[in-house]
Amino acid sequence: MDRIQPRLYNGTRDIKPEIMIRREEMMDQLRVVFNRFGFVPLETPALEYLEILMGKYGDEEKLIYKLDYKNDDFSHRLALRYDLTVPLARFVAMQPDLLLPFKRYQMQPVWRADRPQPRQGRFREFYQCDIDIIGVDSVEADAEILLLQAAMLKSLGLKDFRIRLNDRRILSGLVTKAGIGPDLESQVCLCIDKLNKIGRKKVAEEMSARGIDPSGAQNMLDMIDREIDWDSLDTLHEMVGGVDAAEQAVEQLGDLKNVLENSGADLQAISVDLHLARGLGYYTGTIFETVVPSLPHMGSVTGGGRYDGLVGMYASRDLPATGATIGLDRLIAALTQLELMEERSTRTSVLVTIYFPETKAYCRHLAARLRESGINTETFLAQGSLKKQFSFADRKGIRWVVVAGEDELKSERYTLKDLETGRQMEVSFAELLEKVK
Amino acid sequence: MDRIQPRLYNGTRDIKPEIMIRREEMMDQLRVVFNRFGFVPLETPALEYLEILMGKYGDEEKLIYKLDYKNDDFSHRLALRYDLTVPLARFVAMQPDLLLPFKRYQMQPVWRADRPQPRQGRFREFYQCDIDIIGVDSVEADAEILLLQAAMLKSLGLKDFRIRLNDRRILSGLVTKAGIGPDLESQVCLCIDKLNKIGRKKVAEEMSARGIDPSGAQNMLDMIDREIDWDSLDTLHEMVGGVDAAEQAVEQLGDLKNVLENSGADLQAISVDLHLARGLGYYTGTIFETVVPSLPHMGSVTGGGRYDGLVGMYASRDLPATGATIGLDRLIAALTQLELMEERSTRTSVLVTIYFPETKAYCRHLAARLRESGINTETFLAQGSLKKQFSFADRKGIRWVVVAGEDELKSERYTLKDLETGRQMEVSFAELLEKVK
Repeated sequence: MDRIQPRLYNGTRDIKPEIMIRREEMMDQLRVVFNRFGFVPLETPALEYLEILMGKYGDEEKLIYKLDYKNDDFSHRLALRYDLTVPLARFVAMQPDLLLPFKRYQMQPVWRADRPQPRQGRFREFYQCDIDIIGVDSVEADAEILLLQAAMLKSLGLKDFRIRLNDRRILSGLVTKAGIGPDLESQVCLCIDKLNKIGRKKVAEEMSARGIDPSGAQNMLDMIDREIDWDSLDTLHEMVGGVDAAEQAVEQLGDLKNVLENSGADLQAISVDLHLARGLGYYTGTIFETVVPSLPHMGSVTGGGRYDGLVGMYASRDLPATGATIGLDRLIAALTQLELMEERSTRTSVLVTIYFPETKAYCRHLAARLRESGINTETFLAQGSLKKQFSFADRKGIRWVVVAGEDELKSERYTLKDLETGRQMEVSFAELLEKVK
Repeated sequence: MDRIQPRLYNGTRDIKPEIMIRREEMMDQLRVVFNRFGFVPLETPALEYLEILMGKYGDEEKLIYKLDYKNDDFSHRLALRYDLTVPLARFVAMQPDLLLPFKRYQMQPVWRADRPQPRQGRFREFYQCDIDIIGVDSVEADAEILLLQAAMLKSLGLKDFRIRLNDRRILSGLVTKAGIGPDLESQVCLCIDKLNKIGRKKVAEEMSARGIDPSGAQNMLDMIDREIDWDSLDTLHEMVGGVDAAEQAVEQLGDLKNVLENSGADLQAISVDLHLARGLGYYTGTIFETVVPSLPHMGSVTGGGRYDGLVGMYASRDLPATGATIGLDRLIAALTQLELMEERSTRTSVLVTIYFPETKAYCRHLAARLRESGINTETFLAQGSLKKQFSFADRKGIRWVVVAGEDELKSERYTLKDLETGRQMEVSFAELLEKVK
């Protein structure tokens, strides 16, 4: 039979053990925090009917993996999960008896038919982690999503982060006050979202190119360039004066501040930022994203907002919703760069060598006893000299190696070598256990 | 905009929180055991080039999800991951410098374009969990895969299981000795695999229908009906006498017994069973599967074997391999039926009610303190009477509910109700912590 060239589909990758170990540890830690706030896990299928996903993502829709599947009887237009928000809305719409508020977390891969840029960490299949609250229209829910994100990042050891906060209704009010027509609002948002990347001058040019009147553009940029913080919400209220929805949004920012303060949040880490716009089509209120100031080129590690209209696209009842997406792979990259994640390629503590014919049984029995005592233990399964077995342990990153020959068998002891220090000692089982624990 | 009918692609399902909680707990427990034996985690992409998957699965190949994906520049023939073994072989073939032996575990969904039977637990997307050892041709590796399966099932609380064990080379030897041509061997295996389901008479009929000479069929059935156990391997050796590969396989069974005994395995739970054949095309030696005798209709919860030729289909070097697949969803079903898995729909311990305007801040602060103390705590985020909040806790399965009005605020105490017993008490923060921990 001809050999098949082993290769990966462009833009996908295998997650090797050393990365998987970090991902598992991060996901475990995140789950602890999600449970701390009473969020429950959910998973949805990778395959959805295409019609479920269409009309939700705005410009990004072209990146959905559309798949035709035919069998003997049927032909289906399917698609691969593009994010975890739309499947949640579909799920909730299918559960009329769901107990509300419903707070769920979900950690699953998504697929995007994007141009892959492996060096920038951009792949066609990658993990997302979402937290959402369904059924609460007040800022209590937005506050909890913010609190949870801060708790999450702190629990991963990240102290240096900033959650930027804005509201789509405020942006909309500012567009009105700038004298720009409401039909151009999404264009304005698209442009100002780039402010921190390309600067004010280029954004003004792009606004002009998109048909926004230069004086309107200048007004808008002047307004969002004003420094607004938690103590100057009154100023913001004046800026959108007369636009009801925007005024209400500013008042709710005040309520949000209260709830966050009551709950002991660090308001230094969460701040109003009128430059934030976010691209996705379905946001209707609060929007936010998290950046790591010491990693300015990293982009945001979390992002989200309120999307009160999405469930109603499927269900007869409209349900308010708010939530955030955590870019797991990007967060791993950030924590690794900041040296907050330990790198290791195994969790094994002890390698028990299997070499001398007369002590094989003795050594296998030792491995079983160590495992029963809760020690991660390997034996060397292939044939090989003691030197080869030590080299295996060394290359794999296993710290302790045990050898037992006839002498050790007689004395019921073991030779234990610490590959970290190079020290070697003779030990009983109890001493061995104590050393490697 | 028109409402979109929310629905799932036929044969897929959402995994609701109460099932997800069980799955998470099972996967956590399994990972502990995998690490105990020194296995490392791996993940591979869902999308593979179709050619990677073709020609590996025998008859089952027709169940592969074949997908055509076109974009502006390219047209690709892709497929969704069908199992976790073939992607492992592809991965290993792409890593010429991989440290051997390589022992990995992998827990990911797979997709099969099968007729869905949700009532029998048969879906088009389901989780598999695989453990494999690459690079060891001796029984040391097969023994470890068996030991690990036993340790896994025990750690999940399952005491009542039986691992059935056979070898493809022994079956092949018996086919020869029965006077059946080697070209009919796979037909014979297909038929005898049904013995425990449909009985000897019907299997004999099916063998005849598949062109196997009736006297050959009778010989074969007579031989595999002989009771062979660990102490009668000599008999089995005689039965395949003269067929070198089969004789060698029987001798290796003896070696396997030794390694298992040395490692403290319970040989009552692992037994030779000549009726076992297994369907997949790629097995070359030892084969095994695990059944739960008290759940005779459940089918096997694990299965696997040695597949020494698979890596060589991609790589210039051939690498020996052995491993097992654990049907995670079926195992959850089994453990649930045996009442070995706790059913719960939340991990939250405490609901802090938010009701009286003057104590909202007090209550939110309490929730934050409880979380910091490691207690899974929710506040009621929606508006609602105290009655509604208690009913929410009750329906969700949260045991403890806290109320604080003005009196409690003044006395710095809380009213704590235990929904399990109906008892109510006044407590300080320290007492509250002690109660709910």
